[in-house]
This record gives sequence, C-alpha cells and structure tokens, in this order.
Amino acid sequence: MTANETSRIEEYYNFVLPLIKESGKLFLEVKKETLEVENKSDHDLVTIYDKKIEDTLISKIKAEFPHHRFIGEESSGTKHGTPTLTDDPTWIIDPIDGTTNFVKDIPFTGISVGLVIEKIQVIGIIFIPHLNDLYTAIKGRGAYMNGKKISCSNVQDIKKSLFCYEISVASRSALFKLILTRLQFLTKEVLAVRSFGCPVISLCYVASGKLDAYQCDGLYPWDAAAGTLIVKEAGGYVIDSSGEEFDLMKPNFIATSTKTLAEKYLAIEKIADNTWMKKETDL
Amino acid sequence: MTANETSRIEEYYNFVLPLIKESGKLFLEVKKETLEVENKSDHDLVTIYDKKIEDTLISKIKAEFPHHRFIGEESSGTKHGTPTLTDDPTWIIDPIDGTTNFVKDIPFTGISVGLVIEKIQVIGIIFIPHLNDLYTAIKGRGAYMNGKKISCSNVQDIKKSLFCYEISVASRSALFKLILTRLQFLTKEVLAVRSFGCPVISLCYVASGKLDAYQCDGLYPWDAAAGTLIVKEAGGYVIDSSGEEFDLMKPNFIATSTKTLAEKYLAIEKIADNTWMKKETDL
Repeated sequence: MTANETSRIEEYYNFVLPLIKESGKLFLEVKKETLEVENKSDHDLVTIYDKKIEDTLISKIKAEFPHHRFIGEESSGTKHGTPTLTDDPTWIIDPIDGTTNFVKDIPFTGISVGLVIEKIQVIGIIFIPHLNDLYTAIKGRGAYMNGKKISCSNVQDIKKSLFCYEISVASRSALFKLILTRLQFLTKEVLAVRSFGCPVISLCYVASGKLDAYQCDGLYPWDAAAGTLIVKEAGGYVIDSSGEEFDLMKPNFIATSTKTLAEKYLAIEKIADNTWMKKETDL
Repeated sequence: MTANETSRIEEYYNFVLPLIKESGKLFLEVKKETLEVENKSDHDLVTIYDKKIEDTLISKIKAEFPHHRFIGEESSGTKHGTPTLTDDPTWIIDPIDGTTNFVKDIPFTGISVGLVIEKIQVIGIIFIPHLNDLYTAIKGRGAYMNGKKISCSNVQDIKKSLFCYEISVASRSALFKLILTRLQFLTKEVLAVRSFGCPVISLCYVASGKLDAYQCDGLYPWDAAAGTLIVKEAGGYVIDSSGEEFDLMKPNFIATSTKTLAEKYLAIEKIADNTWMKKETDL
C-alpha cells in the first residue's frame, strides 16, 4: 500500500465514524407501522431507510474524499451487476444489515462500513443502534467494542462451541439442501445452534467471544467487509467454506475463534457435502 | 376459580413484579469471566445466579403468601422427578432462560415467572434485563411491554411469516432427526428462519409482532408458563405440536400470531413427520 494512503487511514476512520453513529439514529426513529416497505423479494425486504442511509454516507464521504470509490448494497447491488474492486480506496457499505429484523423491530440489525485500499481490508466499523454497540477495527491495531478492546474466545473444541449459522439464505438459495445437510451433521457436534438473521452482528459476536463460530454462504461483499476485519483483528480466523482463502468479493465463509476450530467445522462439512453430492447424483 | 383467589390476582402481581425487576439487576452485574459455571450437561449451562435468583424469588413470595406452591427449574428440575401441578396458586419460575446466551453475554436471556391457579395460567411476567424490556400479562386483561399494550401480528400467510425454531434442543433430544426434517420442509415455505436459544424472548417476540411463529419441542413448564399466557393475551394462538390442546406440564408447542398460521405450519409438519417416520421404519 502506498505510504500516502497508509498515513491517511486514521483520517478516513475519524471522518466516517461520526457519520455512522449519526445514521444509527434513523434506526431508532423508525416506527415499524410507518415504514414504506418495497419488496425486493419475499426474503429481502428493503426500506426507504436503506437508500437514505447509504446515499447520505456516500455523498458526505465523496465530498470530503473525491478520489474514493463505493460499493454499496443499494448502489452496487445485484441489479447493477457484480461490483469490481480496484486499487483505489473503496468504501463497502451495508446501510441496514438484517433488514427483516429491522422491519420487524428485532434489535439484531446494524450498519456496516468497511474500507478497502489496494484490495486490503483496512477499516471495519459496525454499529448496532438498538443496543448502542459500536464495533471497530483498523488493520493491525486490534478490535474494539465501544472503545474497549475485544478478543475472540479461545475455544478449540467443537463440542464447546456456540455456532451461528445463517439458515435464512437457504430458502432462497440454490444451496438450500447443502446448508440443511450441513446443519444436520453439525447440530449434534456443537454446544448449540443460533441463527440471528444478521451477518454483521454475528461477526461482531464472534469477535467479542459471544459466539465461537459463524458461517454464511451466498453473502455479498457489503455483508462481510467490516465484520471479517473485526474478527481477524480480534484474533479470530476467517476462511472460505471450501477451505480456500477467504474472498471478500464472493463471501462464503466461516469465521471462528481459532484456526483449529475452523478446521473441525470444515472437516465435518466435507462429510456433509459428500453425502449431499452423493444424494444429488443418485437422483 | 374461587372468587377469593380471583380477587387477589392483582395483589400477587403487584407483589412479584418489583422482585423480578430487582432480580434482573443481577444479570447485568455478572461479568462473564467471573462466572462459576457448573455444567449440568454440555448443552445446559447453569450458573450460581440461576439458583440465587430462584431462591430469592421463592423465599420472598413464600414469606408473603405461605399457601403458595412453586415449580422452578432449580427446585423442581428433572433431577427431582416430574413436578405435579395442584389447584393451589403455583408460581412457575425460570430464573434464567437462555442460560447459554447468559453465560456468553448475548442479550437474549431473561427471567420468566408465571402464576397458575386451579391449573389456569393467570399471570405471566418476563423480564429481559439486557434490553430492559418487561413483558407482562394478566389473564383477560391483555399483554404489555414496558406498560404499553402489545399485540401479535395478523400474519396468516406462511410465506410472509418470520419463524423462530429452537434447533438447539435437537442436539440433545431424541427428537433430533424429527426437528431437522421439519426444518427442511419449513425453511423453503417461510419468510425466514431464526433461532435465538431463548424460549421466553421468542414468545415475547411473537406477542409483540416481531416474530410470527415460534416452535419448541421438549421444553419444561418453567420455559412456557409466562410466555404462552403473554402470547394468548396478545391475541395469539398456542397449540401442541401434535395438533392437540397445549399442555403446560409437557410443553411441545407452536405459538403463532393467528390460528390459520398455526394450522399451515402443522399441516407441513405432518408431511415432514410422516416422511421421517417412513425413513425410521425403513431402517
């Protein structure tokens, strides 16, 4: 990374942080009954607030740093084709992660903003307005919740691990049977299973040791850009569900407290995936 | 119910409410790292606070109302045999519902206190200390959150329903395969799936329209005594997973916003259960 951009990371962080906290106020102003909900699909509710938050963040950052680029759920979503990541400083924004929870007034919903420079994740900020919890990380400087240093649990034993799995994507995804098969194999191996419907809080909970593992396949870059950096800066481990290196632009991943734990999950999933593939071939 | 007991319900409610809010303070005092956790089993962590809260509630209520009986997780748990419900006023107490969440410092955990007189549920109080949310109901007088009247959603269409299913019990239960088979059938029919690991908050979320359906099999009376009354008083519907009448002493149930919705879930589960039974017979 150029020395010039490296030296400016803190400047970018300090400029954007108050904007995110300010946007969070909108979450709490919202009254469920007054929301004008526009259905993207049955499973992906989006609200007027989604656009409002993203537009505000982008216009303010653009005015201050005209050379920055943006990838956001609203501006670069699937209807705009796959977004391309360049070497320029790029803000990857999810204005409302967990939109169904947001609309239903369930507190597990938040704003996620990540900065990537020369394809390296350098800033991750997640704000959960209902809980007033702010999770932050700058590459190489650790992870924080409300200013207090956080770290992943040290759980290595899968039987002691609290596992959060995004089941919801299963209903709309081609991966439906695969995810359910994995769940069948994993449920009996882990301490317990959760499914919160909000990738960004799930990642923050891995980073702060509240969960030991979180997995989601079929996500978008804006769901993962901030949270995966926060997990890594909290000492955790992020790997593609296939066992390959994590790819921010095609996020299928498991985030765990330790590398050993991730390897245990992936070993069980390999058996599950083979069972699933065998069944598919038999059909 | 005797006129004497009926006239005293409000007196009982007013006496117990502040005790529950007071107990909630203990939830927030707890520092995860200082907890002395005693494993009941891998899946059922219990803490010193569990006993402390239950003992305090029971001793204070007993001192005021010596003729009352108690069924509690700690005092009447599985190690004491199946508790018997008499016609006497009986407080059914779960000092910490969602103990794994409690230990992991995930906010979805709460205190649940229900009163049953002549086998009829008459009071339900649930306090979620991390969120400072107090859910209350007195039979025939509606349900409230922090003093504000709440009601279930009016969702009738399963495709629009947010479904919360307790998957965690699956790992320790004989019902393991059945629950996973049902999940396979239901996931593709509903808006989305959640699993919070806390029956009492899940019931409160059905009562306040945040969830449209919640199901859990293999629960205990103390997980259900307050929450099912709160759901019913919020206009919702509670039925045994078999389609029979809900039995508080053996709670396997689905709680939904509407009766129509429950019927749709149960119809799909019947197909799932038959598929599962066929597979079991084939083995």
